[in-house]
Amino acid sequence: MIKNLKYVFDPKNIAIIGASPKTGKIGNVVLKTMLSGAFRGKIFPVNIKHKEILGLKAYKSILDIKENIDLAIIITPAKTVPKIIEECGKKGVKGTIVLSSGFGEVGNKDLENELIKMAKKYNIALVGPNCIGIYNPKTDLDSVFMPIYRSKRPNVGRIAIITQSGSTGTSILDILAEYNIGISKFISYGNGSVLDESDYLEYLENDEDTKVIIMYLEGAKNGRKLYERLKSTVKKKPVIILKSGKYGKASKAAKSHTGNIAGDYLAYEAAFKQTKTIEANGIRELIDFVKIFEQPCPKGDKIGIITNGGGMGVLTADATMEVGLKIAELSEESKKELKKILPPYGNVGNPQDLIADADVERYKKAIDIFMNDPNVDAIVVDILFQVPSIDDRILNVLIDASNNKKKPIAVVSLGGSYTENRRRILESQGVPSYQDPLSALKALKKLVDYSKYKSLLSKDYE
Amino acid sequence: MIKNLKYVFDPKNIAIIGASPKTGKIGNVVLKTMLSGAFRGKIFPVNIKHKEILGLKAYKSILDIKENIDLAIIITPAKTVPKIIEECGKKGVKGTIVLSSGFGEVGNKDLENELIKMAKKYNIALVGPNCIGIYNPKTDLDSVFMPIYRSKRPNVGRIAIITQSGSTGTSILDILAEYNIGISKFISYGNGSVLDESDYLEYLENDEDTKVIIMYLEGAKNGRKLYERLKSTVKKKPVIILKSGKYGKASKAAKSHTGNIAGDYLAYEAAFKQTKTIEANGIRELIDFVKIFEQPCPKGDKIGIITNGGGMGVLTADATMEVGLKIAELSEESKKELKKILPPYGNVGNPQDLIADADVERYKKAIDIFMNDPNVDAIVVDILFQVPSIDDRILNVLIDASNNKKKPIAVVSLGGSYTENRRRILESQGVPSYQDPLSALKALKKLVDYSKYKSLLSKDYE
Repeated sequence: MIKNLKYVFDPKNIAIIGASPKTGKIGNVVLKTMLSGAFRGKIFPVNIKHKEILGLKAYKSILDIKENIDLAIIITPAKTVPKIIEECGKKGVKGTIVLSSGFGEVGNKDLENELIKMAKKYNIALVGPNCIGIYNPKTDLDSVFMPIYRSKRPNVGRIAIITQSGSTGTSILDILAEYNIGISKFISYGNGSVLDESDYLEYLENDEDTKVIIMYLEGAKNGRKLYERLKSTVKKKPVIILKSGKYGKASKAAKSHTGNIAGDYLAYEAAFKQTKTIEANGIRELIDFVKIFEQPCPKGDKIGIITNGGGMGVLTADATMEVGLKIAELSEESKKELKKILPPYGNVGNPQDLIADADVERYKKAIDIFMNDPNVDAIVVDILFQVPSIDDRILNVLIDASNNKKKPIAVVSLGGSYTENRRRILESQGVPSYQDPLSALKALKKLVDYSKYKSLLSKDYE
Repeated sequence: MIKNLKYVFDPKNIAIIGASPKTGKIGNVVLKTMLSGAFRGKIFPVNIKHKEILGLKAYKSILDIKENIDLAIIITPAKTVPKIIEECGKKGVKGTIVLSSGFGEVGNKDLENELIKMAKKYNIALVGPNCIGIYNPKTDLDSVFMPIYRSKRPNVGRIAIITQSGSTGTSILDILAEYNIGISKFISYGNGSVLDESDYLEYLENDEDTKVIIMYLEGAKNGRKLYERLKSTVKKKPVIILKSGKYGKASKAAKSHTGNIAGDYLAYEAAFKQTKTIEANGIRELIDFVKIFEQPCPKGDKIGIITNGGGMGVLTADATMEVGLKIAELSEESKKELKKILPPYGNVGNPQDLIADADVERYKKAIDIFMNDPNVDAIVVDILFQVPSIDDRILNVLIDASNNKKKPIAVVSLGGSYTENRRRILESQGVPSYQDPLSALKALKKLVDYSKYKSLLSKDYE
């Protein structure tokens, strides 16, 4: 069934069962979204009451459609779903996304078991139920039922998202899109009745479009299976996980939400540590962490800091030491070169304060010096865009520095819309930017640790 | 001299010494900013070369001006400053803001001592040197030399900002403005040669416009004085501090930045704990924390959580327990009332998941029930604005709930521009909003702790 997921992400023709002509209905939002996007296949609405929806011919049953259908998105009441899955099976459908809720998560275990039975009988890759499904920017397959004007969709990139909670997943999708951070695939799997979190991980482990995976998990269907899967996947690509339902009372909330009893957190924590899965504490950290993995692996843990604000430099140095990274000792040659580019009232150092009157040229030279210094493993560039001597050529300098892929680079800039607009440009070009030195350094620490793990692995294979 | 600070914040007439006609120069930015604002006094440019600047008559010396001058903003080279201060003294000026750098922070201790001597001789409240000075939204006195199009200024509010670093202060000012969070006064004091951090605290302790104080500190001029001042100020209003230069190497950066040797962090930490000063770890926390203090003091530590996203509810419950607050046990009456407003497939609980199809009416009723439940001390409302069933009347509901001042309320919403625009509206009306449950709960914990301290204090006085 995992193999059949390829039809879910990249189907030729699709049926939307429960498509609706009524604005605001999920079956309407999904059909509209699919029609408005760049999806290249044919779209067949299925509805027992209507003969035409949004200008398309509607079918009473998927069995009435003559063309082959790879994927059915199902939005009908829970009790109708098992029979519809059976029809899909008879039709030769390879995958379904079941958005409908009303299964195990509200106590209807028998109904969920029927659904599982049907999917297995016909070898259908079933996503859900009780989920918001799939978004694949490469094919514009999009079952996310939040209207696009309320919740943006990211462009093509290399981050995959697996989420047990549809709402949390939507928020992550929306904020990534806001900062122009691209994704490879978005998977909201809800109850995970047929395919669970480990199955999606397995698929993404072998997905060439995916470089890094983030995951929101309340409780695993099968803890041992997840552990084994993480052990394998993390060796190939980083997995960043946000585990919720850590505490007793909160577990109750997790239970009513998607029908899983939240597992014992300490066991999860141990499993994450052993498998080198990167754990994020909160949604902000999840997003902070994933961005840094667009950068190359650093050779060590020594950080070079460049700033045009003295205070920001001090905060960045503090953060470096707080997370357990080191402030690089610059080489003598670097010190000589830095002296040349600084005004007489400037001091050479790390953090290198370029002084508030620094222009783009001074930044460019300082970044070059740090890039060429063998004692510097990664670079944090603090920039106050608010200062009048900085102009937008700084964006090119930072993007070029990131594109050369010599050393990881992270930018720190805090401010209002003028600054935020510039951060979005940087993010769109793969330059991770942060509002706070501590956020940047926490992320860099994860990259340093994962790079160390990868380098140990490759030595093992020698 | 502290008394004379009132002339710095609310001067009748001001002189800008070193005003310049040349775009990009600090003396030009400051004059332009002052002219473009709502400042009601007269503005006198002083410049030895020019007779007219930006259409205003310019004076060779402040002594040539006939009118009384309360405040002089000084932007001339360091070596000229002591003499200018003397002239200000002779003119009867009550306060000066010295933006010029080139004093103790680059080794020119003697020059700084001369400046101190002159200020003391004439009893001048001197802000700086080596700072970006003052912004007071009530009078529109504004010496911040970041152009307004790059760095926004907040409206009138009740948060005061004291910052040793101008750049860090600017970033904070800009981000508060972006979210429509108002301030009472902004003070960047740089070297703090004449008036130091404790003096500004003393002034703000007695400032009726200020309800809460945030402070960025690298190292205190006088540790004992700061300790005694915090002991007094925190009894009246909360002080939230971000202390940088915590570590050895970072201290070096702090030293070169504003001429203070960063003090020993452990001693600071102990002093903050003893005086109940609230410490923030990083800029994000500083901003997260200050917003919550617009809310009323809670009576206890039991949190009620309302959500339309199951996952967000679980994360919020986790965060509640992680920071050491409690999940409220709802009263039997609340449970009965909640049952009435939920659809048949919903469960009563805390977190209360209102289900993804919740509309504004369901939210309003749930918030009312939580407001009236004696077991709930504070309310966290998670909202996915992305969901089609929510409309903008939810903003009125939240603002009304916050305005009634019965219990503190915090909103959690993560998303792109659609969501962010709504967060800005909430913030403009004093409703604190967060992108992440953990950020909200960390802030609430600070409010709970401070409220407990205040309530103990008032019992002492009984």
